[in-house]
Amino acid sequence: MLKLYYAPGTCALASHIALEEAGADYSAVRLDFKANQQQSPDYLEVNPKGRVPALVTDKGILTETPAILAYIAQTFPKAKLAPTDDPFAFAEAQSINNYLCATVHVAHAHKGRGYRWASDESSFADMKRMVPKSMGAAMELIEKGMLKGPWVMGEQYTICDPYLYTISLWLEGDSVDLKTFPKVADHMKRMAERPAVKKVMGEQQAKAA
Amino acid sequence: MLKLYYAPGTCALASHIALEEAGADYSAVRLDFKANQQQSPDYLEVNPKGRVPALVTDKGILTETPAILAYIAQTFPKAKLAPTDDPFAFAEAQSINNYLCATVHVAHAHKGRGYRWASDESSFADMKRMVPKSMGAAMELIEKGMLKGPWVMGEQYTICDPYLYTISLWLEGDSVDLKTFPKVADHMKRMAERPAVKKVMGEQQAKAA
Repeated sequence: MLKLYYAPGTCALASHIALEEAGADYSAVRLDFKANQQQSPDYLEVNPKGRVPALVTDKGILTETPAILAYIAQTFPKAKLAPTDDPFAFAEAQSINNYLCATVHVAHAHKGRGYRWASDESSFADMKRMVPKSMGAAMELIEKGMLKGPWVMGEQYTICDPYLYTISLWLEGDSVDLKTFPKVADHMKRMAERPAVKKVMGEQQAKAA
Repeated sequence: MLKLYYAPGTCALASHIALEEAGADYSAVRLDFKANQQQSPDYLEVNPKGRVPALVTDKGILTETPAILAYIAQTFPKAKLAPTDDPFAFAEAQSINNYLCATVHVAHAHKGRGYRWASDESSFADMKRMVPKSMGAAMELIEKGMLKGPWVMGEQYTICDPYLYTISLWLEGDSVDLKTFPKVADHMKRMAERPAVKKVMGEQQAKAA
């Protein structure tokens, strides 16, 4: 059985939703970030990076959201979560997920995790001020190009959708006005209506209580 | 024919080497970053992000290094640049490339591209000071875990190798002492001896002159 390590409010939500959509037999283990459990010796054995998500499989442990999402899509082909039989379309999905990971998530992380890249309080404050602008610029590219609609890649729901949704949930806290991005806002609404999303959100929120 | 847009000294080197290793029929187009050519209207038509690499295929344009590398591996299977028939091993390769993209490249980018995440000169200076530490921490994870040797994934040369090599070339400029990371240093030497790497490095350096 697959085991996903996650913490509420993190990008691990994307993998959690994807497992649910895939109909996978899995368990989800919540880490307490407030107690810094992701840096505990036990968890560092699972993921030496001290981050989530980590997916424990019978072949070993996988980390990094785009890799985990593609793995779920490839190992649960009936769920059709990625165009795995078309290398170009698959690369397009990977490209979107890489952008969400390396540019959009990174821009967001400068709000609360500036210590990864600087050490002065004044730098952290400066980074925080930039987040609405950098996240807004990313959302503009997504709104105008990447998000085809109704789902990210068009008619077919894919592994790009839970990832964009996960990041979209951060936008209000990042002071990005969703009214400026109607397609992204519409995508969020459509995602929130999916049974898999409702179930996972309920589970993550209940456990966080 | 495939067309790769690159600039010398950037992460596009990884895709360039992979195309050469794959035996692909391709052309490489150099952008002049000093003239800000990556932000020209013509190039923004190719890649609205204003970045390299971008790979023009007969089906459309791909961006983001991990996605391009996986595409090359999948479309040139004879070159065996990724374990494309084993979803877990393929995900491991993707995980390494995602880490190089979203953590290691991002750490490096804080040396010269701090304006992406902040606006004060003092923040840029602070970010620059952190780079040896953040890049060193990443290299420690790579040295102790990810880099199996002789190649990143073990006996088989894969798309992870040109990507790690590309980033390793930045370490001296990032004030990371390669003597501390003998496996990474050894990997660099082994990469530099490959005919494909010699050819691509020669082409990128000649065009930059």
